[in-house]
This record gives sequence, C-alpha cells and structure tokens, in this order.
Amino acid sequence: MVGNLAGKVALIVEYDGAAYAGWQRQTNALSVQEQLERACTALFGTKVGVRGASRTDAGVHARGQVASLSLPRPFPSQKLVPALNWNLPRDIRLAAAYKVPENFNPIAWSKGKIYRYYIYLRRRPTPIGVKYYWHVPKPLNIEAINKEAQLALGCRDFASFQGAGSQVKDTTRTLRRLCCWRKGDWLIFNCVGNGFLYNMVRILVGTLVEFGLGKRAQGDLAAILEACDRRAAGVTAPAKGLVLERVLYRPSLDSYPQL
Amino acid sequence: MVGNLAGKVALIVEYDGAAYAGWQRQTNALSVQEQLERACTALFGTKVGVRGASRTDAGVHARGQVASLSLPRPFPSQKLVPALNWNLPRDIRLAAAYKVPENFNPIAWSKGKIYRYYIYLRRRPTPIGVKYYWHVPKPLNIEAINKEAQLALGCRDFASFQGAGSQVKDTTRTLRRLCCWRKGDWLIFNCVGNGFLYNMVRILVGTLVEFGLGKRAQGDLAAILEACDRRAAGVTAPAKGLVLERVLYRPSLDSYPQL
Repeated sequence: MVGNLAGKVALIVEYDGAAYAGWQRQTNALSVQEQLERACTALFGTKVGVRGASRTDAGVHARGQVASLSLPRPFPSQKLVPALNWNLPRDIRLAAAYKVPENFNPIAWSKGKIYRYYIYLRRRPTPIGVKYYWHVPKPLNIEAINKEAQLALGCRDFASFQGAGSQVKDTTRTLRRLCCWRKGDWLIFNCVGNGFLYNMVRILVGTLVEFGLGKRAQGDLAAILEACDRRAAGVTAPAKGLVLERVLYRPSLDSYPQL
Repeated sequence: MVGNLAGKVALIVEYDGAAYAGWQRQTNALSVQEQLERACTALFGTKVGVRGASRTDAGVHARGQVASLSLPRPFPSQKLVPALNWNLPRDIRLAAAYKVPENFNPIAWSKGKIYRYYIYLRRRPTPIGVKYYWHVPKPLNIEAINKEAQLALGCRDFASFQGAGSQVKDTTRTLRRLCCWRKGDWLIFNCVGNGFLYNMVRILVGTLVEFGLGKRAQGDLAAILEACDRRAAGVTAPAKGLVLERVLYRPSLDSYPQL
C-alpha cells in the first residue's frame, strides 16, 4: 500500500514477555498493551488505545499477537510500522500491519490460536535462552503424552484446565490439535484451538508432563476433564515456555492490503 | 564417580555471553573466567584459578566451553558441579565435569572447535532471543555462500580473517568444515577447525554474507585469502550470533570419569 492511510489497522506484534505483566493494561505493572499504546500516543500526539486478540499471561511470549487500532489521523502507510517500532522498546516489535475493515475486532473475528510450548530436557538447564523454556530434567514418555493428549481434542468443557481467578462462566472450548515432538534436547508442544481459558495451555502442558513422567495412569485425562475442577488437573507449566504463535482469521489477515 | 575427588577437573561451561566482556579475565570489565574463578574461590575458601580452552569475544555465547581447575582440596565428586552452579550467576552454568589427568591443558590438548552462527532472515527482527542472532533482512544466495565457503577449507594462512589488535604471528589454521543451511526464518552456519584466530569465525561469516548478497564475485575468496590483509575480507559479523558449541579432544572428554 502506498499513500496516506486512514481508518482501522491490524498489527502483528512480537514480544519477549519476560519484562511484562502480560498483554493486558494494568494499574500497577507494565504491560505490552501499555507499551504499544504509549508508542501510538507518542507517534500521533493524541491518546490512542489498542485492542489485542489474546490476553497473554505475565512472562508469556508472542510471535503473532494481533492488535487493532484506529488511526486518529491519516498517516503515510509505509511509515507506520517503522515509526511505531522506533517508539517501542526493543523487546516489542511489530512484524507487519494490514488495512482491515472498520468493524474489525481482533477478538470477535478470531477463529482460533496457535501456541507453542518449549521444554528443555537435559539434566542441567542451559543459560542460553533461559527465558524461553521450562526445564524438565527427567525422562518423559513422549508417546504416552501424545496418546493422552488425543483425549483432550474436540469440543469439551475445559473447566478443569482453567486457572483460579478467572471470571469466565462458559468454559467450553474446541481443541483442534495438541501434540508434542522431540527435537534434540527439546520437547516442543503444538496447541491449536478456537479459544483458550485463562492458563489453559499451561495447565494442559503441566498435566501432560505428569503423564509423561508416569505420575498419572494412561487414560485418566478423560476423568480430569469430567471432574470440571481445577484440582483434578496437574501443575501449571511456567509462563516462560509459552509462545503465542499465531491468531487465526478467516479470511486470513494476508487477504487484506499489507502496509 | 563416587567419593572424594582430588586433582585436576575439566568443566563443560555454558554461558549467555551478553553480559560479559568475553571469556578472558580483564582489569576493567566482567568476564566469564572471573565469574567462574569467583565461584571456585567462594566454594573452596582459597584463591582458585581456572583456564579456558577458548577466549571467546565479548558477547559470544558458549554451549561447550571447556575449563580446567586443580582442586585445592579433596571434594565430594558428585557435589562439585551443583555446588559451583550454586555459586555462579544464572547466565553461566556448568553442564558436566570430568576427572582428567594432572597434565591436562584445555588449550594444548584441544584438537579443534565447533562453532555455530545464527542469522535471522525475516524483514523485521524478532524480539524473542534478540541476544542470539544477527539480523540480515535481505535475500541471501545460500548456494553461493556454500560454494564460496569450500574455498576456505583446508590448511591455510587466515591472516585476512584475523581481527585487528591480535598479537598472533602464526596465522595458519586448518578449517575442516564451513557451511550453512536454512531452517525456517534462520540461516545457521557450522564451522569446525583445529583452531581459530581472533574474530576469525565472525569475519568468515561476515565475508560469506557479502557473497550471499551478491556484493562480491564468486571465487574471490581465494584472492581474499592470498592477500593476507584484514582489509581484503568483509565485515566482522556481530558477536551475539556466535556460539562455541564444543571443544574437541582425542580421546574425547567422555572417555574420562564423569563426576
């Protein structure tokens, strides 16, 4: 796109979440949303709000968060991403921007999300990238994990996998994919669903690791789901191993003009 | 190994080099060697020196640096690595330790080193792991790079690939492997040689990238080598993309008792 741009824009936001209290703006702690709003406000000289597709937790990273903003005045389209990146701290970067319809809503329009979770398996933790993994230095039965993960697929009540403190009442979600594979010293989980409850991916991973360690009997995931009780599931895997890879839209954001 | 241990030990040291002025102890800046010596001194209550196999530059990382120390007094063998890790900052970790012969010298006994170099290729830099890559957001001809890299293999005078400020007179080294491959948004270099001059890997990578960008004519690496002049080669790739993967010994360290 060339020329001046007005109206609604969707941004692809990447961030290292280590320094932030999560995506969502908060009173007493620094959030990614606040940093992005500050950058927009600095650029346009007027207060600008942004809305994100996913409220990632404190310490969770993103390679493909989606945020929307309404430009307060026309702006040269090819300069928007560089100008905002200039105003952002180095641990938050915009990867791309799209001109979207005025009624675009990053949450309501979203058809799903893709998450990755990284576990480091060697005996001692590596200091290289220590912010990006969970250290599980015990033998894991990967086949058992993947077999058990199948039981969570489909449209189900995930109340057992919702972190304490959430106000969400309808805890039904559709999980499309949940599997893991080993890559050298790493175990990587792939998780795709239409939506996720608070801490849901982290509790799924934490619980599956307990199956992988042999602490739970094969097939018990069905009972955990049925319990609809957080106490039935396992630990919440640490935030730092989680990355929001992509938010899915239909049509995809790539079908809109890219700035 | 069980029981009390005395004598010489080789340590496998991993570190995130971002916070350090390199491996080597310096007067005015913090080094990895100094941190390790401090940890040993704190543990044994007496001044302990360590010697490293490779003097990695400021900002360079290591997954397999090798350091040796002489234990000032017998110590429970299975507790040595955990106790030292306890005394080390989080960006330096010992991965393993071996009981080696008294005359073990990590430099003199080394038969070679393996380095990896990471380049991120997408248009905009990702903030996740920004400390661990060089951002080259331009199309690279990988085939051209690998073809050119072949010309550097073997026993040669690498004077053109020695950074300024080095006192080393004999600049002949044997390069055994130098190649790169694409993996998603990444370009990864593998570099194996019997020894490396100051900045040598970084200048090799920086120069090869110039071939990949089409800034230099295919085959010119031979002339760069012949020049024996630093000015004939290309830029020094940033330290942060470089990782010392492994120091090679014959027999391998695994042939000694592991603590």
